[in-house]
Amino acid sequence: MVNLTKLTKLSINQSIFSKMGNITIKMLAKELNLSTAAVSKALRDSHEISEGTKKRVLELAAALNYVPHPYAGSLREKKSNTIAVVIPEVADSFFSLALNGIEAVAIANGYHALIYLTHESFEREKTLLKDLESGRVDGVIMSVTMKTDTFDHLKSLNKMVPMVFFDRVCEEIDTAKITTNDEECGYQATQHLIDSGCKKIAILSISESLSINSKRIQGYQQALLENGREGDPASIIDYGEDSVENFEQLRKVFREVDRPDGIVATVSKMTTDIYLVCMELGLRIPQDVKVVSFSNDSTVAILNPSLTTITQPAFEMGELAAGILFKALKKKYLVLSEESTVVPSQLFVRNSTSSSV
Amino acid sequence: MVNLTKLTKLSINQSIFSKMGNITIKMLAKELNLSTAAVSKALRDSHEISEGTKKRVLELAAALNYVPHPYAGSLREKKSNTIAVVIPEVADSFFSLALNGIEAVAIANGYHALIYLTHESFEREKTLLKDLESGRVDGVIMSVTMKTDTFDHLKSLNKMVPMVFFDRVCEEIDTAKITTNDEECGYQATQHLIDSGCKKIAILSISESLSINSKRIQGYQQALLENGREGDPASIIDYGEDSVENFEQLRKVFREVDRPDGIVATVSKMTTDIYLVCMELGLRIPQDVKVVSFSNDSTVAILNPSLTTITQPAFEMGELAAGILFKALKKKYLVLSEESTVVPSQLFVRNSTSSSV
Repeated sequence: MVNLTKLTKLSINQSIFSKMGNITIKMLAKELNLSTAAVSKALRDSHEISEGTKKRVLELAAALNYVPHPYAGSLREKKSNTIAVVIPEVADSFFSLALNGIEAVAIANGYHALIYLTHESFEREKTLLKDLESGRVDGVIMSVTMKTDTFDHLKSLNKMVPMVFFDRVCEEIDTAKITTNDEECGYQATQHLIDSGCKKIAILSISESLSINSKRIQGYQQALLENGREGDPASIIDYGEDSVENFEQLRKVFREVDRPDGIVATVSKMTTDIYLVCMELGLRIPQDVKVVSFSNDSTVAILNPSLTTITQPAFEMGELAAGILFKALKKKYLVLSEESTVVPSQLFVRNSTSSSV
Repeated sequence: MVNLTKLTKLSINQSIFSKMGNITIKMLAKELNLSTAAVSKALRDSHEISEGTKKRVLELAAALNYVPHPYAGSLREKKSNTIAVVIPEVADSFFSLALNGIEAVAIANGYHALIYLTHESFEREKTLLKDLESGRVDGVIMSVTMKTDTFDHLKSLNKMVPMVFFDRVCEEIDTAKITTNDEECGYQATQHLIDSGCKKIAILSISESLSINSKRIQGYQQALLENGREGDPASIIDYGEDSVENFEQLRKVFREVDRPDGIVATVSKMTTDIYLVCMELGLRIPQDVKVVSFSNDSTVAILNPSLTTITQPAFEMGELAAGILFKALKKKYLVLSEESTVVPSQLFVRNSTSSSV
């Protein structure tokens, strides 16, 4: 704690400090008659510096409103030329494309990107982030697991290195977030199914704690509401990690008399299950069931039938996230949260929602 | 060079050495009246040890057939609990599945896997491997780029840490290699097309320097030969990195009067191009052109038409590679090359090669 009453007694050399905007360690050192190294160590609460000296440094720093760059220390001392990318998986075209965008920027900046996969395990995410606190990397780009529902591990790492979130962001952390217009896309996909003649539209939901998922569902509900449809809670189908259970559940849903005639898949990998269940039950796409998927798969145009998609700007989102991270690594003062960007996705209409077949 | 004539003069304490199998540094130290640290440094050719002492140590080590574990030093001194996985890309279901296999084993062993992507750049592969020589990781699992045609960077890293290759292996490095039966599969795919009635079979080739590619092509040529077909060199189509050029080339091939009526895609991503070109030119699959792809894509069953594949045991190959690496990290004596394994792939016949449509 800085004793503010004492500050008035400090002999501050006004001629040095009056004109400048940014207070530097060098200025503090000169005023306190200490070495810059000593001031730097005092600011980092080093055991090498006496409590008395630490107090003097902190009081002057506070009086002059000295704002240290939170990461400058680690960067100057031990630059790893490495960033970490922490993502749930790569067996998904969204993440693999985003990764390519991140890598393109990292390579251009002379950096290595270390890729860490959480495999949707919250425990693993916590372990990996703890490991990153050791200073192995200069910055982190990440997308959280579908189970991440507490945020202390993110806050803790964010104090050590700059972090940028993309797609599956954490609203609780005050930093840059690169997202797409998920709510609008949920709305757009649903409205497109309504326009194509669907009467009962279901949506597959991956995780209640993921903001992208809840936003897509909000958009879905909004479209139903605006079209005077009842937001039937039974039409929101939980899609978990057990592939056998997922398939069984879809089979059950489509066997019902009151089955959906339109479905929104909020992630790409649901598509194969939907197509296979329909095939098995003799339901024709699009005549009996119309399908829209959030997907970046390269095969969507050659599916049977070709798939209507909401396609996210995956590569661009990765590029943007990395661009902001490198800006933070180069600049001393950057308010990361001000760099947040929303990049719109795009609806591509193909045969899986055709009403003229 | 060890002077063998001198060895007879060494006063070896037979009572110490007669019964044991493994000679340890401690034994050498005792016999030479040196500290274990000095022996260890001498064996590592440290500048801290005089040439005379080094010579004494090396001579005794040679006489007693002392075999140092090549990586024991780095492991004892600085265990990172981290392995590196160096692969060309993740936007390919083979590599993303193999990665999942590797990670499953790494996690079970309490290790982190750092994933490095080369993006098929030979230069990048060299830079990344140089970086790994710093001792950041305890071991490396890798699949080389399609341009890797010299091997000094691999040999150099292999001296520092244990390496295991999978899929795209480097024959020049004497270590464990996990592969699938590529030649047999090239043969099997081609024979299946012949059996399905194809008269002119082409194969898409990704890289002349990759062993997996040349083996698949050898199998293709062998099948043609055994069926009394001429191995038409024009039927081996180079498929590079430029997606526009690739598409244009396929279009040209299928526009010819003497076009192929069967095609083998040696990697999964070629499939979309083949299907789209056929669609554009009004060629029906399988009636006009039959297709077999090496693929692990989850969508193969819902393509239009469903795709006949050679499916590699991707996850299992990753698991095996990691299993061997951890065995090497735990055991003192392991001849890695003896751990090489060939895991067979499987042909799944679907509609893209049907002769009854």
